Amino acid sequence: MIERIERALDAALPAADVRPVALSQALRWAVMGGGKRVRPQICLMAAQAAGGRAEDAIQAACAIELLHSYTLVHDDLPAMDNDKERRGRPSVWAKFGEATAILAGDALQALAFRLAALAPRNAAAIVASLAQAARAVVEGQVEDLNALNGLNVLNTLKGLKAVKAVKALNGLEEMFAKKTAALFAAAAEMGALAADAPADAVARFRTYGHALGMAFQYQDDLLDGEDDSFSSLRILGRDEVRHRIATYTATATEVLEKLPGDGDVSPLVEMAALLAARSF
Amino acid sequence: MIERIERALDAALPAADVRPVALSQALRWAVMGGGKRVRPQICLMAAQAAGGRAEDAIQAACAIELLHSYTLVHDDLPAMDNDKERRGRPSVWAKFGEATAILAGDALQALAFRLAALAPRNAAAIVASLAQAARAVVEGQVEDLNALNGLNVLNTLKGLKAVKAVKALNGLEEMFAKKTAALFAAAAEMGALAADAPADAVARFRTYGHALGMAFQYQDDLLDGEDDSFSSLRILGRDEVRHRIATYTATATEVLEKLPGDGDVSPLVEMAALLAARSF
Repeated sequence: MIERIERALDAALPAADVRPVALSQALRWAVMGGGKRVRPQICLMAAQAAGGRAEDAIQAACAIELLHSYTLVHDDLPAMDNDKERRGRPSVWAKFGEATAILAGDALQALAFRLAALAPRNAAAIVASLAQAARAVVEGQVEDLNALNGLNVLNTLKGLKAVKAVKALNGLEEMFAKKTAALFAAAAEMGALAADAPADAVARFRTYGHALGMAFQYQDDLLDGEDDSFSSLRILGRDEVRHRIATYTATATEVLEKLPGDGDVSPLVEMAALLAARSF
Repeated sequence: MIERIERALDAALPAADVRPVALSQALRWAVMGGGKRVRPQICLMAAQAAGGRAEDAIQAACAIELLHSYTLVHDDLPAMDNDKERRGRPSVWAKFGEATAILAGDALQALAFRLAALAPRNAAAIVASLAQAARAVVEGQVEDLNALNGLNVLNTLKGLKAVKAVKALNGLEEMFAKKTAALFAAAAEMGALAADAPADAVARFRTYGHALGMAFQYQDDLLDGEDDSFSSLRILGRDEVRHRIATYTATATEVLEKLPGDGDVSPLVEMAALLAARSF
């Protein structure tokens, strides 16, 4: 399944020698850099679990990965997280310059919507789902930056107590829902839409994706450890974070049990278990 | 018509007190700052000229204006044109900071596609048209930045002769087509699609928009004068620029004469004449 996704992403991007060359190379650098392709896999698995074919959802799957890629390109910018590295190599701005990185991110978002519009069934609904997620991701990022700024100020003033204050100030779950789970929810929803699933099934897949994304973000924080400046681990403690990962993973699995039809949900169940147990 | 567009844009944006507040205010600052609304007007006029109703194209019209707004927000960034002002007041990054401006631009692009997906007819085709234009604008901006950089280097070395060299190096018309005319072409095309016009009529509206956009960009350069560091005026001379404005304006008008149906094309003809004669 991953090879199919890699091939489709490769085909969706301009070749490295297409002008303007700097842009084409930046787009390929951003996308073809060895991501785990979790979101597009969820999209294809959801389409199959809904009784459809993976090939009907491949445009939606690529669209969600391109959207995810754009958010990473912009998150790494100096004015944002100022990360010079991504996946063990230079980030897009570190390699191609800030202006090209801003524009490459913009182009990836446009390309994501172009692909979503090419979905053979329910294209408009798939685009709307992607757009809703795209909006949520930005809101989550703004809230994350606000929380970080607030935390830095408060930490300077009052130390660890400040973390508790930030907890009250910022809805952690709401922020996680927007910055991470929204894309997972859209991935599963778009897959179900591509398979032309009935509305109640689409809603179930969306709930699966949301729960999976929440578990994913808590797991991310657990793996990052307490070094991260704004982490659920510091706010909630390790036990509570583990509890939430287990709860969300269980929710993701349970919601699939009540699906109509006879599509194969086992890959989605395995994905939930895999992500909850991951160490990467 | 402009009031209808202003109302629809206002309704499409989050209220100023919606959280995250900084984002909502930045979005409103970017969009509700007194643009001329040329592109959404073209979209609505095209829908009516194609025999449809303006209300069927209002989502597409707002989508094209939001996309245009996002490009301005990102163009103004320090890493791009580094403009602290826009329309006589602080640009988004100067007022809200760089990170918020990057994210506000991203959100506006997402919102543009969300609106396009809500078009009552031909939503997928309208999204695809918008996505194609969005991609072209980024490519045009990259080529523009490359040309500017090339020009700065060459100017330092060899003075005005360098401008001629840049002309050879960079396809000026291709750059104008991407960075300006693509959005005008999409505006007219999306209006025609919203009116469910037949394919040959859609193509004619697209040609109208393209020609109008080319004339608009040359007119822009004419109004900016020779102070602009990379201007068609310096490369081609005033006479040739005037000639091209007249030619493109004539093309825009002529293509409308051969339209099938009995829609009223006169507002589009007037728009072409107005833009060619503008002094703002």
